[in-house]
Amino acid sequence: MAEITLSQARAVVDAAARRSQELGTLMDIAVVDTGGNLKAFVREDGAWLGSIDISIKKARTARFFNMESGEIGKLSQPGGPLYNIEVTNDGLVSFPGGIPLRNSDGAIVGAVGVSGSTVENDHDVADAGTRGLS
Amino acid sequence: MAEITLSQARAVVDAAARRSQELGTLMDIAVVDTGGNLKAFVREDGAWLGSIDISIKKARTARFFNMESGEIGKLSQPGGPLYNIEVTNDGLVSFPGGIPLRNSDGAIVGAVGVSGSTVENDHDVADAGTRGLS
Amino acid sequence: MAEITLSQARAVVDAAARRSQELGTLMDIAVVDTGGNLKAFVREDGAWLGSIDISIKKARTARFFNMESGEIGKLSQPGGPLYNIEVTNDGLVSFPGGIPLRNSDGAIVGAVGVSGSTVENDHDVADAGTRGLS
Amino acid sequence: MAEITLSQARAVVDAAARRSQELGTLMDIAVVDTGGNLKAFVREDGAWLGSIDISIKKARTARFFNMESGEIGKLSQPGGPLYNIEVTNDGLVSFPGGIPLRNSDGAIVGAVGVSGSTVENDHDVADAGTRGLS
Repeated sequence: MAEITLSQARAVVDAAARRSQELGTLMDIAVVDTGGNLKAFVREDGAWLGSIDISIKKARTARFFNMESGEIGKLSQPGGPLYNIEVTNDGLVSFPGGIPLRNSDGAIVGAVGVSGSTVENDHDVADAGTRGLS
Repeated sequence: MAEITLSQARAVVDAAARRSQELGTLMDIAVVDTGGNLKAFVREDGAWLGSIDISIKKARTARFFNMESGEIGKLSQPGGPLYNIEVTNDGLVSFPGGIPLRNSDGAIVGAVGVSGSTVENDHDVADAGTRGLS
Repeated sequence: MAEITLSQARAVVDAAARRSQELGTLMDIAVVDTGGNLKAFVREDGAWLGSIDISIKKARTARFFNMESGEIGKLSQPGGPLYNIEVTNDGLVSFPGGIPLRNSDGAIVGAVGVSGSTVENDHDVADAGTRGLS
Repeated sequence: MAEITLSQARAVVDAAARRSQELGTLMDIAVVDTGGNLKAFVREDGAWLGSIDISIKKARTARFFNMESGEIGKLSQPGGPLYNIEVTNDGLVSFPGGIPLRNSDGAIVGAVGVSGSTVENDHDVADAGTRGLS
């Protein structure tokens, strides 16, 4: 199994942080490995304290189901097939900002989670992070 | 970074308690510091036991995102961008009653959370608490 | 059942805080009611963050068993009859600093817990708190 | 109150990681701020998964009591004054590897926690991390 290295995780974090600075946002950025376990994390100065947990949970959610965290949210609404799935796994986050990380072979090697602004910005910064993976 | 003192936290609690008495409500009142850690707490005689945790979580929520707790609730409804964010951070409270505390320089030094009546009264009492900060 | 009032809880906290200042210590001081639920709490400026939880757990421990928290510790040592009881009740504290509060009739109306210095000082300050109960 | 910056936290992590490589160890390295909240984290390739939580808890323990985590362990043994304190605060770690971080003025700005090898190596690497703080 391919597994993310710390060097790769740092590259993801740095790419995300650069995008955050371009956008003028203050972000919490987390990377987890294929086991869903934390690999790297940074909180930009002034970023929300509440986003520590959310960024990590977004990354875990993305890896737990191998899809973007926001995809879960489409299925977890009232009346939907995965209603309230968020209470499982010690808490999932089902809105955008969590994205699986794939290596050059297309294999999932982990996931990145970003929180600290609107969900659009969170997703944008996480997406920039994925492109930092070499 | 400015940090709330116990003298200030007591002033917030006392201002909130006076407003609670004016309204004839029975409130739990909590103050947290910039790290989201409890600084002062009182439960008025007869106030709900269930509001101990809620008042503390409201204060933490307000500090975790530097906004009033009720603002989160506008975004966390079904179909909203932060749906079910409440399951993160060991439990957030997204209805009114949590307000950041700012010193005379406008710097956030903590937050107050109030629970025990309607959310309108909870917010009213918390707001009175913020004005107790000198 | 007699129950501690907020006025009484504040008197306990204030008596404990005065003693803490006499000793030159920085304390977290918690009061719980007969149900073991938090009634009042203060953290002196500069007091340990880790003592927030410990002071509350000391008070709860004292009320849960109607004895000083340190009494539990005599029974919970390796080979003792209550070995590792500390892992129950979401965490008990079995060293000194938690004392039941009794009214003038001798009825238990709650408990006080103090943490922030040596266990001798913690107990001393908690004991001063019990004498604040009128 | 002084607060650690991300630039400082990264310098601490990097100094610790360099020392880990000198020792030939595989470490988890965490930095928390003055509120005990996570600021930066890295897990070296091959480092123990179980050390993610331990490194974070070591850092939190060091900040919660403003002392090295191993100092707590000297007091928390059977028969000691703080026996089983580890069950408080959602879990403390009372063996070496957590050290408060002080700025050039001597003010505590957070703490570093390291886990992944012997406690002697963990402490050594954490200590190297503290010297990375500029």
